[in-house]
Amino acid sequence: MLVLGFADYQPQGEALARELGLPFALIAVHRFPDGESKVTLPVPLPAEVILCRTLDHPNDKLIELLLSVNAARQQGVKTVSLVAPYLCYMRQDIAFHPGEVVSQQVIGQFLASLFDKVVTVDPHLHRIERLEQAIPGREALSLQSAALMGEFLAHHTTHPLLVGPDGESEQWVRAIAEPAGLDFAIATKERLGDRQVAIKLPAHDYHRHEVILVDDMISTGRTLINVARQLKQQGAGTLHCLVTHALFADEVTQALRAAGIEQIWSCDSIAHPSNAIALAPLLASGLRK
Amino acid sequence: MLVLGFADYQPQGEALARELGLPFALIAVHRFPDGESKVTLPVPLPAEVILCRTLDHPNDKLIELLLSVNAARQQGVKTVSLVAPYLCYMRQDIAFHPGEVVSQQVIGQFLASLFDKVVTVDPHLHRIERLEQAIPGREALSLQSAALMGEFLAHHTTHPLLVGPDGESEQWVRAIAEPAGLDFAIATKERLGDRQVAIKLPAHDYHRHEVILVDDMISTGRTLINVARQLKQQGAGTLHCLVTHALFADEVTQALRAAGIEQIWSCDSIAHPSNAIALAPLLASGLRK
Repeated sequence: MLVLGFADYQPQGEALARELGLPFALIAVHRFPDGESKVTLPVPLPAEVILCRTLDHPNDKLIELLLSVNAARQQGVKTVSLVAPYLCYMRQDIAFHPGEVVSQQVIGQFLASLFDKVVTVDPHLHRIERLEQAIPGREALSLQSAALMGEFLAHHTTHPLLVGPDGESEQWVRAIAEPAGLDFAIATKERLGDRQVAIKLPAHDYHRHEVILVDDMISTGRTLINVARQLKQQGAGTLHCLVTHALFADEVTQALRAAGIEQIWSCDSIAHPSNAIALAPLLASGLRK
Repeated sequence: MLVLGFADYQPQGEALARELGLPFALIAVHRFPDGESKVTLPVPLPAEVILCRTLDHPNDKLIELLLSVNAARQQGVKTVSLVAPYLCYMRQDIAFHPGEVVSQQVIGQFLASLFDKVVTVDPHLHRIERLEQAIPGREALSLQSAALMGEFLAHHTTHPLLVGPDGESEQWVRAIAEPAGLDFAIATKERLGDRQVAIKLPAHDYHRHEVILVDDMISTGRTLINVARQLKQQGAGTLHCLVTHALFADEVTQALRAAGIEQIWSCDSIAHPSNAIALAPLLASGLRK
């Protein structure tokens, strides 16, 4: 067995290989000026390989996975697992307007057609309960970062209060807070229009805690910034945030800081300056099962 | 029946629909900041649709085709044809080094899995002879722009001499020149190293003609620039170039002009300032057969 990685997620792939006690090799990707990708696999490959690549900004990567897996199978590889700590296209799980493509379904089926097994962490599942429903007919392993996050907070904060920015976040907040015996509160979100939302915070003496905003991902950061401002208005002193997937650019970091958030911590599901929690041990233990 | 197009190739899609006497509708694509694509189809769709999208810079577009076709079939569409005047990934048709993915094969199979029929113009086939070999099990129609190009030259040049920059280009040059009774010459290319090539021009009195460099595509333009310089050294006066696929950026246009090429003409297989020949009539007549 062998772990195959890509240059854009190499240290994390190598860490996974180390945890598993397996060798690591790179799949080389060259992007031509005309936008096509050239993919070169190591030769020869063993009968079983694990492809480790996270799937933020996914379209190029999905085509490169298609190229890689087909070529691996032509080399005679029998079992190909995908470890994608961030799994793309899980959010569009319903057609909000007629004709909208439910991309969770299509991309899930596409991955199921390529891989024997898909492993990810904290997928953003909203209207389906289990990852298997999105990746039909394959082994689909959805790992939770909650225990690692709880442990991280125990080491880095004092008497923290976890705050989820909206109802959707409750599943992640609860999974971290309850086993660790931490206090938590969940804000509620009300859409006032296409871009405007009202956030309601439950009553709490926020000033008595280190407040930690918790969510599965930050992308535009809009909700989190909104909640951070209100927490500040309600007397919160120290304010940090902790997410699994850091799907955001530098300007969002600046906006988060401007809203009063001091530390921004994330898991390394997406390579990002805020990475503070390595997922390799979790991924390895999931794969060993 | 309906022609479905995309905003990045809309005028050409509309022209095709007009030629076919069919209605046209847009597939809406939105790219999120996180790199995912949201695709919305018109509703309802008829039993048979033609998707018209050219496939330069293909990776995003291929994922969007995957999303579109799956959703169309879920709407009950029975027959989906792809009209891609420029067909991507046709050039990597062999593994030059061990482990290199033969992307022509993989992407061809991918398209065969989505579409009932694939129509393109002047695909860059080198080691296979027929497009069906790349798109297995489906109707694959490879149209030639040669007749349109010959007609164009008849109207826009006087006593032209066509020059192909290398042996590969001979098939395109010959297809234009012979039916129109035009003179032509083919240069030969010798690789001296990874980036260096020597070009040999056959003896000819180049100064007596309007010289037209002809190829299936311009991408980096390197070979064409090399040949243009030599033609100038050998006394060529007026020098133009004519290609099917304009797969190049502005800086290449400037380099071509600096090498002495006056007019750059292309077919509209890829939307480009050099477009001079509309392919819609050719595509429509191919589809009608």
